[in-house]
Amino acid sequence: MTNRQILLAARPKGFPQDSDFQLVENPVPEPGDGQFLVQAEVLSVDPYMRGRMNDMASYAQPVQIGEVMVGESVGRVIQSRNAKFPEGTYVSGMFGWQEFAISNGESIRKIDPDVAPISTALHVLGMPGLTAYFGLFEVCQAKPGDTVVVTGAAGAVGSVVGQLAKINDCQAVGVAGSDDKINYITNDLGYDGGFNYKTTDDYYKAFKQLCPDGVDAFYDNVGGPISDAVFPLLNVGARVAICGQISQYNATEKPQGPRLLWHLIVKRATIRGFLVFDFISQYREALEKLTTWYQQGRLNCPERVTEGIENAPRAFMELLQGANTGKQLVKICPE
Amino acid sequence: MTNRQILLAARPKGFPQDSDFQLVENPVPEPGDGQFLVQAEVLSVDPYMRGRMNDMASYAQPVQIGEVMVGESVGRVIQSRNAKFPEGTYVSGMFGWQEFAISNGESIRKIDPDVAPISTALHVLGMPGLTAYFGLFEVCQAKPGDTVVVTGAAGAVGSVVGQLAKINDCQAVGVAGSDDKINYITNDLGYDGGFNYKTTDDYYKAFKQLCPDGVDAFYDNVGGPISDAVFPLLNVGARVAICGQISQYNATEKPQGPRLLWHLIVKRATIRGFLVFDFISQYREALEKLTTWYQQGRLNCPERVTEGIENAPRAFMELLQGANTGKQLVKICPE
Repeated sequence: MTNRQILLAARPKGFPQDSDFQLVENPVPEPGDGQFLVQAEVLSVDPYMRGRMNDMASYAQPVQIGEVMVGESVGRVIQSRNAKFPEGTYVSGMFGWQEFAISNGESIRKIDPDVAPISTALHVLGMPGLTAYFGLFEVCQAKPGDTVVVTGAAGAVGSVVGQLAKINDCQAVGVAGSDDKINYITNDLGYDGGFNYKTTDDYYKAFKQLCPDGVDAFYDNVGGPISDAVFPLLNVGARVAICGQISQYNATEKPQGPRLLWHLIVKRATIRGFLVFDFISQYREALEKLTTWYQQGRLNCPERVTEGIENAPRAFMELLQGANTGKQLVKICPE
Repeated sequence: MTNRQILLAARPKGFPQDSDFQLVENPVPEPGDGQFLVQAEVLSVDPYMRGRMNDMASYAQPVQIGEVMVGESVGRVIQSRNAKFPEGTYVSGMFGWQEFAISNGESIRKIDPDVAPISTALHVLGMPGLTAYFGLFEVCQAKPGDTVVVTGAAGAVGSVVGQLAKINDCQAVGVAGSDDKINYITNDLGYDGGFNYKTTDDYYKAFKQLCPDGVDAFYDNVGGPISDAVFPLLNVGARVAICGQISQYNATEKPQGPRLLWHLIVKRATIRGFLVFDFISQYREALEKLTTWYQQGRLNCPERVTEGIENAPRAFMELLQGANTGKQLVKICPE
């Protein structure tokens, strides 16, 4: 039995390509004292990983060339020398793009498969769900009656933001990259409206029609020209949460755009960037709420599942191209 | 005796010119019941006035063609039919660019000439001082030990921001447009350092040298390339106050610049635009503090005084070009 791993082979120039990744096989490691061995079942691929491929200090260290790609997965403990994590326990953690991983239990979350399918620990009941929750309620300070605009509305985070906005009696307007996605978010997730940015010429006009009372909260996952069009529509006292700027991650030159800051004076608006980790002390409370809403059937997220660790690079590149509606996952099937 | 007034004659295209203003003479008005007549002594000219000359809805209505230019002045009540404002009272209010004005007392502040020279009601102890105070303490949340960067550091607001930062035990770094201004803010106002942007090629490098521990709070009056250079140096949790964007006010096309929002994610930083009016409920408390610091000699502001209402347009245009160190005033000398 071997451990198949995906390593960072080269730093991408612009959009990643196959040759930036390398599939290797290594022996399955043995847990030492206090450690346990996890067999991964589902891997999450997320936009933030693009940043970790660059050789640039950020909020976390970059992945080094030859290292296993960073990522969270859910798996089962199959061998344990740690009494707190007996064999058979389901766990999620930053195990990387590989089939097996060793852990000492630090920063590991136990997953109860009876509460929800284990894959939900990677979206609605995991990091994307928490990111949606804190971005909407803490950063955007969304209140009932607010008009909330969400970019990347059909993605893992945006799907949840819209549903949370509706649970909170907001108007939710989403932007996504296909008609199918727009149909999905409006018909299945409860968004009040939205538009396909790939077939819309005038974003400002589209937002103006969808937000006749202006925009009170803007949850931005995308950046670039779509986001530019929201700023003139901000209401006095509006809050903008910068969660992601996926339109910029593969830029090879410094992206330029219209200067937006003067809008903030007139509108007395606030823009705040955040990371989900900033709210770690409130994770437990938020997860309890998200779990309750999930169990009530008020919160869900479609999954796009790619099979096989060897296809994780492709799944990741498709994610960056917006192929996924909902959460992009990689089902790990050891040989 | 006539009332000389400056009217808005035309909406400027780009930088204002003489022909955008018109000097007229009208009879001095008579106060009606409940009203009083003010003879203006000092007029304030401020960057915000440039925005009011445009035909664009903003936080306030634009000045209409043929109307008296908007502005605050300090003057003396010389005729009164309002018992609360007897003859001889000094008052400040939005009396406009003219020598005499009628008021019913609404939104009028009484000025005590024994506390400080009356002109200070237009800077340290008035709107610019309050703008500095709330921007620094409420919006930037400046704490002792913070490194605070201020653009437009030698202007009416920036002069006060630096002194307040030093009173609050911050490091204060300022940017201004001449060597004399930099000498002034560092030698006389207590700024720890600064640079002349007109003779500096690499703003980023200049900030990096002056702020070796990064930037915790950024008080921006200017915008454009100077401000762009601050964003990469923001510390985690930094706060940016957008008070003005004077570099953009005369733009004839939509200004472009590097996209900055992704910096906010990594730095979990907040940008907030504000108007001093947002803090009106705290004016009294703030003015008491500013007055105490002024009387202790810890807070001052140089004045650049232009003589004669007929020269107000020139004074205003020179302000937009940065001719002033400290507060630009117009001394009003009725014939």
